[in-house]
Amino acid sequence: MTSFASDNYAGVHPKILDALVRASTGHIKSYGGDSEYTARAEAQFKRHFGPACEVFFVFNGTAANVLSLASITQSFNAILCSEYAHIHMDECGAPEKFTGCKLITLPSKDGKITPAGLQAAIKRVGDQHFVQMKAVSISQTTEYGTVYQPQEVAAIAECAHRNNLLLHMDGARISNAAASLGCSFREFTTDAGVDVLSFGGTKIGMMLGEAVVFLQPELSRDFLYRRKQSMQLASKMRFLSVQFETLLEADLWKESATHANQMAKLLKERLNGIPGVKITQPVQANAVFAQIPREIVTALQSQFAFYLWDEATCEARWMTAFDTRAEDIERFAEEVRNLVKAISA
Amino acid sequence: MTSFASDNYAGVHPKILDALVRASTGHIKSYGGDSEYTARAEAQFKRHFGPACEVFFVFNGTAANVLSLASITQSFNAILCSEYAHIHMDECGAPEKFTGCKLITLPSKDGKITPAGLQAAIKRVGDQHFVQMKAVSISQTTEYGTVYQPQEVAAIAECAHRNNLLLHMDGARISNAAASLGCSFREFTTDAGVDVLSFGGTKIGMMLGEAVVFLQPELSRDFLYRRKQSMQLASKMRFLSVQFETLLEADLWKESATHANQMAKLLKERLNGIPGVKITQPVQANAVFAQIPREIVTALQSQFAFYLWDEATCEARWMTAFDTRAEDIERFAEEVRNLVKAISA
Amino acid sequence: MTSFASDNYAGVHPKILDALVRASTGHIKSYGGDSEYTARAEAQFKRHFGPACEVFFVFNGTAANVLSLASITQSFNAILCSEYAHIHMDECGAPEKFTGCKLITLPSKDGKITPAGLQAAIKRVGDQHFVQMKAVSISQTTEYGTVYQPQEVAAIAECAHRNNLLLHMDGARISNAAASLGCSFREFTTDAGVDVLSFGGTKIGMMLGEAVVFLQPELSRDFLYRRKQSMQLASKMRFLSVQFETLLEADLWKESATHANQMAKLLKERLNGIPGVKITQPVQANAVFAQIPREIVTALQSQFAFYLWDEATCEARWMTAFDTRAEDIERFAEEVRNLVKAISA
Amino acid sequence: MTSFASDNYAGVHPKILDALVRASTGHIKSYGGDSEYTARAEAQFKRHFGPACEVFFVFNGTAANVLSLASITQSFNAILCSEYAHIHMDECGAPEKFTGCKLITLPSKDGKITPAGLQAAIKRVGDQHFVQMKAVSISQTTEYGTVYQPQEVAAIAECAHRNNLLLHMDGARISNAAASLGCSFREFTTDAGVDVLSFGGTKIGMMLGEAVVFLQPELSRDFLYRRKQSMQLASKMRFLSVQFETLLEADLWKESATHANQMAKLLKERLNGIPGVKITQPVQANAVFAQIPREIVTALQSQFAFYLWDEATCEARWMTAFDTRAEDIERFAEEVRNLVKAISA
Repeated sequence: MTSFASDNYAGVHPKILDALVRASTGHIKSYGGDSEYTARAEAQFKRHFGPACEVFFVFNGTAANVLSLASITQSFNAILCSEYAHIHMDECGAPEKFTGCKLITLPSKDGKITPAGLQAAIKRVGDQHFVQMKAVSISQTTEYGTVYQPQEVAAIAECAHRNNLLLHMDGARISNAAASLGCSFREFTTDAGVDVLSFGGTKIGMMLGEAVVFLQPELSRDFLYRRKQSMQLASKMRFLSVQFETLLEADLWKESATHANQMAKLLKERLNGIPGVKITQPVQANAVFAQIPREIVTALQSQFAFYLWDEATCEARWMTAFDTRAEDIERFAEEVRNLVKAISA
Repeated sequence: MTSFASDNYAGVHPKILDALVRASTGHIKSYGGDSEYTARAEAQFKRHFGPACEVFFVFNGTAANVLSLASITQSFNAILCSEYAHIHMDECGAPEKFTGCKLITLPSKDGKITPAGLQAAIKRVGDQHFVQMKAVSISQTTEYGTVYQPQEVAAIAECAHRNNLLLHMDGARISNAAASLGCSFREFTTDAGVDVLSFGGTKIGMMLGEAVVFLQPELSRDFLYRRKQSMQLASKMRFLSVQFETLLEADLWKESATHANQMAKLLKERLNGIPGVKITQPVQANAVFAQIPREIVTALQSQFAFYLWDEATCEARWMTAFDTRAEDIERFAEEVRNLVKAISA
Repeated sequence: MTSFASDNYAGVHPKILDALVRASTGHIKSYGGDSEYTARAEAQFKRHFGPACEVFFVFNGTAANVLSLASITQSFNAILCSEYAHIHMDECGAPEKFTGCKLITLPSKDGKITPAGLQAAIKRVGDQHFVQMKAVSISQTTEYGTVYQPQEVAAIAECAHRNNLLLHMDGARISNAAASLGCSFREFTTDAGVDVLSFGGTKIGMMLGEAVVFLQPELSRDFLYRRKQSMQLASKMRFLSVQFETLLEADLWKESATHANQMAKLLKERLNGIPGVKITQPVQANAVFAQIPREIVTALQSQFAFYLWDEATCEARWMTAFDTRAEDIERFAEEVRNLVKAISA
Repeated sequence: MTSFASDNYAGVHPKILDALVRASTGHIKSYGGDSEYTARAEAQFKRHFGPACEVFFVFNGTAANVLSLASITQSFNAILCSEYAHIHMDECGAPEKFTGCKLITLPSKDGKITPAGLQAAIKRVGDQHFVQMKAVSISQTTEYGTVYQPQEVAAIAECAHRNNLLLHMDGARISNAAASLGCSFREFTTDAGVDVLSFGGTKIGMMLGEAVVFLQPELSRDFLYRRKQSMQLASKMRFLSVQFETLLEADLWKESATHANQMAKLLKERLNGIPGVKITQPVQANAVFAQIPREIVTALQSQFAFYLWDEATCEARWMTAFDTRAEDIERFAEEVRNLVKAISA
């Protein structure tokens, strides 16, 4: 099955798989105490995000988000995010359950929030009857496959900090964002004022593994205990660590993300001009959103896995991955063209 | 470094590693919706634990324990366990935080609790000022490397059920227990009255992964949501599933556990008769506990990794794994003998 | 200071105060075990809500709401409510913190939700990535001082039950609602399909005290423990109980609520026709909402306490209480008239 | 019924009842914003505990304890307390549920812990697998009716602070302790190094109400939100405040506590020398513990309410209150004497 359903339908990048195999020899210290894989992976993060950052590996993206947010809030706080945010829409209430906080949604355009929207939402400061706003979370790339410019992140950070909020970035697809921007991770995170980051590994070709990166290192003080208590401490940590090391050391992240992004761009180009197919979001990373004729959905899904993002408007979401092939894109676009033709006949 | 520190210092069993590599091809449905790996792994569990069981994969042992217990309690309940239980001593308060329950410890002998000890602890039923006892958790193997006989489990289950408690088994090393007993998993779990089980994969040679197995299937009704909300749903689930499938389909679990257990037995035999070395626990699975002369600890640890279980009494814990070699045991015992001789000289 | 700020600015109704004084003699059993006051108060609830109901007293309205909702949800559920609901806007995130649930808001008209709005919000049933909807909460009276007709409640209950949701009613001002409807409590609660109710005592003239009333009694099974663990068990329970008994036994609730409602109606009438003063909500109970000229706010608040409900539109909220006097209403309306005249001059 | 069951079987002290009646006039600001009762009550606390303290009123003792402890811990911490502590034995797991912390018990003598016992329990500092100890809680008076000397509190505080722990005092019966010691509150709290205190009002003659007193004021920074979110903010706050004001302004607390303590002393004296009655704890405040002949229990309880503290040893607990009368003591002792004589006949 060729799939555009999600980048997590993909397997493991061969280089990462090789690294996993190589790492599986001998006994080494568990729980991250190893001075080999884990120390080297941490060093890679410091190289990319600045020497002061502190990094901790967890199992999945929900955990990275929830533990990041728990580190910067208390239960009587509110967390602000886009109305489409993964933490709001797709984590089964994990943020509320584990932080105790209320999530308050902000209007967004193309999945992106703005400093003005954030400022407008900050209300009832000091009112004991209402949750006190303490964190704002943005997704990079967004759930609509769009990308914040570094200066957009900086403007949100500035607004957040001016209001005594901290800024979290959900970077489940941060590699795709960096590749799209053509800049270093650091330029739109550490340097832009992000306080804590969920760094995504799984969707860019790891087997599993995400990182919580504290760009304000003092926020990480008790994180060891929080991670363990939150059921996110891997005993055979080397197998998370070696994947991150492989991803980061020789720009495998960039190569993989650039390819995935190009495939999305190719898909957009090939769909251009097909009657009844309307691209609905800017294609800036590895996602293409489009409204399609409702009559072609079933036939198309019988050959290519993908989700309807919005049933009501028949808007589809197609994701590309590190292993998406150009010929799959061509074949897919061809099929769309044929199906549209068939229904117009 | 040769290590007897923990079975989680070991890497991945080569057959499981091969399976992981083979599984990494193509796109398949994420989050456990795949009809290949996950369905097959589930079938293996049904083969071993009975067709009615329901199984869910999670990342680590703390999660398996906590989510199991959360499924059978409410926040005003108490969970009873041995004073040495991993859930009490080594999970950084995760059970309390995530279930809300109080843990109440029972006296134990060789790490094992008894129906009499359990019965004696059941108090204040119906008293609104005190937590109401609802679950008892036993570890198989225990934290002392001992093993409950099937009839011992059954007696505890009977006592628990008679008092309206449910029985959880922490089977982080369940394979070692089954190999030690020379019986099927089912005989001391499903058939003995266990209600919910944490089935351990990591310590018996997986990269990571544990399973929550509901032997009373109706307890699992809402578990999908609980797992996701508890940050334990793997997106690329096939990589947990294929490991369990490999472990269970052709008795790899038994081969690995039998070997590890034999290595512990060999170690015990080789240490026998060394002056000042006193085996403190029955060696029934893959752990050897012994008091050793305090003067040899540093020198011994400089060559072999291991933990002092009890600093006060200088009691060491040595764990063997699927990949422990007989020659390592011989070399270790030889070194103990030499060091003891040196200090006696 | 004459106040229209809130019905909780009022003191205690003299009859209730008398009852409190009379109840303070001798030693009686604590924690609700007394067979005098508490048993008699419970009997009053059974008289008003039906013999099958189960009632438990707690300290305040937030507790009544949160404990009600906690009794009918698990942490991976969602609670639906109006966008103006007290549980959403004025309880500092207590529902999220203590139930773990996400709150999802429904559009409302005059503070009231509709079955159609509820039905439209029920989505993603069975989707493990999203909270599963389990409870809907309505406020009677609403936060806008409007009142659901019994058949409106019944229609919401029917919609809720058809979708496997339970219906909670926040009755912080339920007496005002019943007086407004001119019917028994039972007609728009038990008989209309409400499953659990927060019955308000404080705002109708008690010193403090609210009740959780389970109209589906089996939902109350473990409530004793939940109440105690949630820090809501009064040791000298008689002082909560005797207030409820006094409120309910000879229709003091109705007398007080009818008076408060009449005062609101009088206020509305007296404000009628004052230029620039626009009543914004139907006046059905003890609240009057009105847009007023921004220039008169400060002067008016210097004499009469009240809150601006909506700063942006200069919409004021005026609440009447059991002890609001007609002459205060007259004096207030007169002052509004004078201030408006002054600014028009 | 004459009762020695608990000081919370008593009603409200007449002076406090009078104050409640007087306070119930007119409308005043709710939620503690009143500048009359609440401000005056707060001033009384500053007078007794030092001008820097911060005080907040809550409904009951469990809440005062839980909110105090929640203010000084995170979920991965441990709270240490006596094995008899109310927070451990009689709050239905509220501390675990609401702080997330594990409670670890310390051995005690006469209900009192020692610095040595505390020091011995502090273990595994910096070990991510175990809860990190952060708070120690002592009860004054203890659950055995004994009283810590100021220097004993100071020694525990010193030990706690040296180990980076904070000291909480459960002062449900703090007035009885101060009366017993013949000193000010301040000498054994603020001056002895207590960080946060639960100040008990209910058991010394209030209708209900306890106070959280932060003796280290910076710990109280976010307490307003914590109290509201924890369902402990009274709307008609004046009725909590005026009780505290009355209790504290003219030494009503001391008069009441001194009387109750004297009654306990009288009871002890009158029981002296009755065969088979053995006082088991030092009588230092308002509790008398004694082993009594099992054969007299039923007959005695048919006339006087009291609890058996320990069924196994037939140890009774008798509590005296502000309103216990000397003649009740005499009558009770006489009855014990008669019953004992009857069974010896």
